[in-house]
Amino acid sequence: MRTFADISVSLDGYVAGPAPSLEEPLGRGGEQLHEWVVRLAAWRRTHGLDGGEDGPESRWVEEIVERTGAYVMGRRMFSGGEGPWDGDPNATGWWGDEPPFRAPVFVVTHQPRPPLELTGTTFVFVTDGVASAVAQARDAAGDRDVQVSGGAEVIRQALEHGLLDELQVHTAPVVLGAGTSLLAGIAPAAFQIVETIPTPQATHVRYRITQTHS
Amino acid sequence: MRTFADISVSLDGYVAGPAPSLEEPLGRGGEQLHEWVVRLAAWRRTHGLDGGEDGPESRWVEEIVERTGAYVMGRRMFSGGEGPWDGDPNATGWWGDEPPFRAPVFVVTHQPRPPLELTGTTFVFVTDGVASAVAQARDAAGDRDVQVSGGAEVIRQALEHGLLDELQVHTAPVVLGAGTSLLAGIAPAAFQIVETIPTPQATHVRYRITQTHS
Repeated sequence: MRTFADISVSLDGYVAGPAPSLEEPLGRGGEQLHEWVVRLAAWRRTHGLDGGEDGPESRWVEEIVERTGAYVMGRRMFSGGEGPWDGDPNATGWWGDEPPFRAPVFVVTHQPRPPLELTGTTFVFVTDGVASAVAQARDAAGDRDVQVSGGAEVIRQALEHGLLDELQVHTAPVVLGAGTSLLAGIAPAAFQIVETIPTPQATHVRYRITQTHS
Repeated sequence: MRTFADISVSLDGYVAGPAPSLEEPLGRGGEQLHEWVVRLAAWRRTHGLDGGEDGPESRWVEEIVERTGAYVMGRRMFSGGEGPWDGDPNATGWWGDEPPFRAPVFVVTHQPRPPLELTGTTFVFVTDGVASAVAQARDAAGDRDVQVSGGAEVIRQALEHGLLDELQVHTAPVVLGAGTSLLAGIAPAAFQIVETIPTPQATHVRYRITQTHS
């Protein structure tokens, strides 16, 4: 079993543009980071949609979904909100009644809350940090892998605590100019490139984390 | 004829690590950014060395050299120094008597100076800015292309003035944590991926600049 982070970034290293909001959760220009994936058959299938492009890139996305037995994400990635759940207009998440995960999702938050069961996906709220969320996800994933899906803060903490075996980065050919940086402030490290999938829409690289800071 | 920038960056977007010095011109950890190229036969040949790895990556480097009819670079890339040339211990550049360029090199600097002719390469010092250096390089390049080689500041200015047709980025699987950022402060833009060469040592992507700011 491996624990991997998987995230789309801009050429200048941002996972979201400036001024994220409920209307524009990925900030100004941030939607462009995911243009590569939303056109793929694999992504569309998991989101209940027909059609889309098939091919190696789509199969690769499918493999990522198949290898994932549990997810870890931050509160903002889940709902865009902060503070008590009472005041969060998006407290059941971005994905409606049938989220695309179909595996347990561990949400790192300071605000305690009982698990939220939606069709096919249960969200578990973890208040004692990223390491605890990853440990719980590992227990839940069985033989499959744990995906740390973001945001940047959660991935950075997972890196810093030495919890990641792999980092998968999808780089879109876009400069956002400002926003939320994926790697700003990370300690120096050397990774290994284990797989690269070049496409005209994005460059997908899987890095093995060879040097961790725990 | 095209004008392209060509530069190696870390996964966190730095072209050099922190604290560059004469002893460590690429800053702390910065040498790692060029490990992919110094092992290649094409690079070794241009630097008067035998051996090295052949293959598509080396041929690609050879093509970059062949297509380049003139270079543009910043003062720091040339010598690492600043201020009057009198006080610059590296005033003839990093490359000894026979630099690897074998084409005119236009050095952007505030300090006027007559051209420096070394074996095979003439360095011309340009005091009226990056746009002027690129214009002079275009005149000198004939049918071939102009390569803007760095540093980050010169490439950023070339981008901002709409002088670049292409940006070639070699991303090494290394996190430097701090240093000189390639793209920090650049205005938002969308590029097009025109070519990707994936290798275990670095990911080479050629972007077409589809949106310029002049």
